[in-house]
Amino acid sequence: MFERYVVTPDKLFDLNKIDSGFTEDFKSKKDVEEEFHRLRKRLCELQDVLYAEGKRKILIVLQGMDTAGKDGTIKHVFKEVHLQGIKVVSFKKPTEEELSHDFLWRVHKHTPGKGEIAVFNRSHYEDVLVVRVHRLVPEKVWMKRYEHIRNFEKMLFDEGTTILKFYLHISKEEQKKRLLERLNNPRKRWKLHVEDVKERKHWDEYIRAYNDAIFETSTIYAPWFVIPSDKKWFRNYLVAKIIVKKLESLNMKYPEPEKGIENLKID
Amino acid sequence: MFERYVVTPDKLFDLNKIDSGFTEDFKSKKDVEEEFHRLRKRLCELQDVLYAEGKRKILIVLQGMDTAGKDGTIKHVFKEVHLQGIKVVSFKKPTEEELSHDFLWRVHKHTPGKGEIAVFNRSHYEDVLVVRVHRLVPEKVWMKRYEHIRNFEKMLFDEGTTILKFYLHISKEEQKKRLLERLNNPRKRWKLHVEDVKERKHWDEYIRAYNDAIFETSTIYAPWFVIPSDKKWFRNYLVAKIIVKKLESLNMKYPEPEKGIENLKID
Repeated sequence: MFERYVVTPDKLFDLNKIDSGFTEDFKSKKDVEEEFHRLRKRLCELQDVLYAEGKRKILIVLQGMDTAGKDGTIKHVFKEVHLQGIKVVSFKKPTEEELSHDFLWRVHKHTPGKGEIAVFNRSHYEDVLVVRVHRLVPEKVWMKRYEHIRNFEKMLFDEGTTILKFYLHISKEEQKKRLLERLNNPRKRWKLHVEDVKERKHWDEYIRAYNDAIFETSTIYAPWFVIPSDKKWFRNYLVAKIIVKKLESLNMKYPEPEKGIENLKID
Repeated sequence: MFERYVVTPDKLFDLNKIDSGFTEDFKSKKDVEEEFHRLRKRLCELQDVLYAEGKRKILIVLQGMDTAGKDGTIKHVFKEVHLQGIKVVSFKKPTEEELSHDFLWRVHKHTPGKGEIAVFNRSHYEDVLVVRVHRLVPEKVWMKRYEHIRNFEKMLFDEGTTILKFYLHISKEEQKKRLLERLNNPRKRWKLHVEDVKERKHWDEYIRAYNDAIFETSTIYAPWFVIPSDKKWFRNYLVAKIIVKKLESLNMKYPEPEKGIENLKID
């Protein structure tokens, strides 16, 4: 069903050939609005049974260039979900303590427990992206990390974690538009950093790094989805749809009542 | 403004004398609905500037008997808030590792950072409540904890944390109703535990423990509010109102744009 978006393991793959403006047959936000609201409510129901059942762990990874819409996706897709069973973890520039450990150390702490959804805003993938582009560690170090990531995610999967990874794909042109929007809107200007604009000069290197990372780590147990994200409404709709489909496939159930509950006297 | 609900330091105070069914002049949910929605939206705006400003830390503590509505309050009051800047931490039965440390250790880890709201569903207060009622540590140990809590919260305050503590006050009769509701509703039955009903036998002891804890630890810098909670709609309305008022009083501002941003070229 999502064949068009999922990255098939071992199949050649070129991010530059994927249309970031694609919106299926939908012409505008209006066309998906009703379905998007249904998906959002459905996600809320599914999260309720996930939490009640208390067996499965859900890990959602969001990656993308600056302004690709990681924050916006989180805000809109999970709007209806009960705060109690979901945590959003934003991985920023690592601290000294974090850097003194292996690259998976700070991430592992925040993986979801039973009944939980964890949403990673950036993730361990930064250690083969920004780290590579800015040569923060030698190539022979980051090259090995693809395998470490595959092994780590396999372990999480074998221990009961469902993993979905989304690359929010925007064009360089669209990023320009969004940066200008921040620059020209006084209420948004504080969000813009000189560094973001500098990072833009490395666009092609980032695309290459993403391309390799996604190709190397998209697996059956932890697939990558490339989400056309120039249109925010399509991005939100598609991410919600993929998550809902996946959660529905897990056949989760509300637990049986505790033994002896029927004969309980409440005075 | 909230004089009626805030617990004044050093003033004698008796939880048994506070009407848990109180709803001001409001007769039904309808009477507060519009204002509640406005408060919820306002809370969302305030959280946005809190996050953007990145200076202040907000800690909200929720305590109350089983079924008092801690989960429901979280779900409804913070519905509009962007997931990114808020975390809910539920403190359950402590693990062995947690027990091997002092009682504030596990709590301290989860206090909010700059720009963050942390909502504690149960908290360090359990260590002078359930721990006292079930005699899990000797009296001479838990008695000293009131002072430790005051000192800890004073430190958090001095380091930039705004603290609001809510006791969701329900009557024993209302709890009975809510437990029976869980028992009789097949979709809710899994939530009911034999232990919850056993805990009910200790109602008076819990009230005494709450009464002492609230009296001993309501301070200018970390006040307790007793929220009449028999009516869920009034509880949600009042908690939202108190939080909004407090956040408004902080006079938060969006940060100035970074230097040099005006002359930035985006190619």
